Amino acid sequence: MKINHLGIATKGIKEALKFWEDALGLENVHTEVVADQKVRVAMLPIGEIRIELLEPTSEDSPIQKFLEKRGGGIHHIAIEVENIEEALAKLKREGMRLIDEKPRIGAEDCLVAFVHPSSANGVLLELVQSKK
Amino acid sequence: MKINHLGIATKGIKEALKFWEDALGLENVHTEVVADQKVRVAMLPIGEIRIELLEPTSEDSPIQKFLEKRGGGIHHIAIEVENIEEALAKLKREGMRLIDEKPRIGAEDCLVAFVHPSSANGVLLELVQSKK
Repeated sequence: MKINHLGIATKGIKEALKFWEDALGLENVHTEVVADQKVRVAMLPIGEIRIELLEPTSEDSPIQKFLEKRGGGIHHIAIEVENIEEALAKLKREGMRLIDEKPRIGAEDCLVAFVHPSSANGVLLELVQSKK
Repeated sequence: MKINHLGIATKGIKEALKFWEDALGLENVHTEVVADQKVRVAMLPIGEIRIELLEPTSEDSPIQKFLEKRGGGIHHIAIEVENIEEALAKLKREGMRLIDEKPRIGAEDCLVAFVHPSSANGVLLELVQSKK
């Protein structure tokens, strides 16, 4: 298991890059829109993981709601698992609350599923299984 | 550069381990009290980084205040840098707001310094330089 990425909610990726790219020295290697989650995503590798800057693409994006409530900050942690179905089944057996009982399609066509923050100390946790 | 750890605020480490250890499958390899920051820390490696579960050791701990405000969640991201003095100088030159102008001693005797969330999209960012 390893962290796949950290999702950070921003009002705008361009402005956010002044910190993460210009001042901190990371590089934005890829930007895409994830239609299903109504976000634009900029990916900045750091070691084996990456920072994902998230920008809402519509008023009803979950990121827009998060920004209204919190003003920004770390939105979620994504953990890479070998087998997402097995990981979800184990969490369920242990009594953990899941947002997604079944995986769905995330950025770069990975399978993803979210665990509810109420089971993970207030952390919104995403499980990711890469394409084989 | 790489992520060193993710700090997660919890009301109690023992309860939190039911999720991170028992259900998710990580392992708590080390626990220590960081007196300077008034926290107990449990360290769970995941790939090249680690999850750090944080528990307040006093009523005036910054983690206690965070818990009262947010109920838990991701408290900070720590990034490992080669030279913390240089990294702080660069951030300052770029106009970023620092909490610590000079490094101080963190967990495992590393040098650490925090960047203010107002400069980093609401993220509390810790810079860490490991002991040589």
